[in-house]
Amino acid sequence: MDIALREARAAAARGEVPVGAVLLRGGVELARAGNRMRELSDPTAHAEMLVIRAACADTGSDRLPGTTLYVTLEPCPMCAAAIAAARIARVIYGASDPKSGGVERGPRVFSHSQTHHHPEVISGIAERESAALMRAFFAARREEQR
Amino acid sequence: MDIALREARAAAARGEVPVGAVLLRGGVELARAGNRMRELSDPTAHAEMLVIRAACADTGSDRLPGTTLYVTLEPCPMCAAAIAAARIARVIYGASDPKSGGVERGPRVFSHSQTHHHPEVISGIAERESAALMRAFFAARREEQR
Repeated sequence: MDIALREARAAAARGEVPVGAVLLRGGVELARAGNRMRELSDPTAHAEMLVIRAACADTGSDRLPGTTLYVTLEPCPMCAAAIAAARIARVIYGASDPKSGGVERGPRVFSHSQTHHHPEVISGIAERESAALMRAFFAARREEQR
Repeated sequence: MDIALREARAAAARGEVPVGAVLLRGGVELARAGNRMRELSDPTAHAEMLVIRAACADTGSDRLPGTTLYVTLEPCPMCAAAIAAARIARVIYGASDPKSGGVERGPRVFSHSQTHHHPEVISGIAERESAALMRAFFAARREEQR
């Protein structure tokens, strides 16, 4: 999760909402990324999506069985559905996201039969640091907008 | 919807699940695409995602207000959440997708407060043709697997 947190901090430094992710298989890193929506003008460029796309491109497969995704924030429904489509085995995330989360709340993407793969989910790892990054980012943005 | 259906047929010819999409603003086409998950080894390369990413790249913005997305099949939760993130005004789709849909069923992505934009949704346009393409594709695949 330290790598994911570093990616989140790097995202904040680029003016992006500070979320970072890293994908591992058997202790080997496959990909890491932070949010790049603004930089790439791409609303789908969430950290999780970038990690999934990079790892699939590298492995030449659209599935990533046996992998663990670490991400600093509860995935949104887009990322949760992509995680399921990629058959990622385990998702470990930091802070909950009451505003936009799609795992524990709202769409609860992994709780429906229309989602054909339900990864193991562990939450609350490095929760405090992950949430603090988000709070600091949005506080600074509000300050700028005054 | 004729363009979306053509994209769906072209996807089937490439061995992809036959879903096609096109994005318009004020009658002007911004992007069209069919599924390319297999071709690109990318589980996120659904027709809707490719159209959103192409239109955002062309316009240099991560939002697409005032646009209408035509897609042959009910969007999955990933695509529905991306549609909301991109602030697409209207989604017009063909066939329902009881197996993997995320709009009318299961995650019902547009029905939660965690989704910050709820597009107008119209369904059942060219439903029969859209569903027939899906049925023919999966029937042929089952035949191959015998």
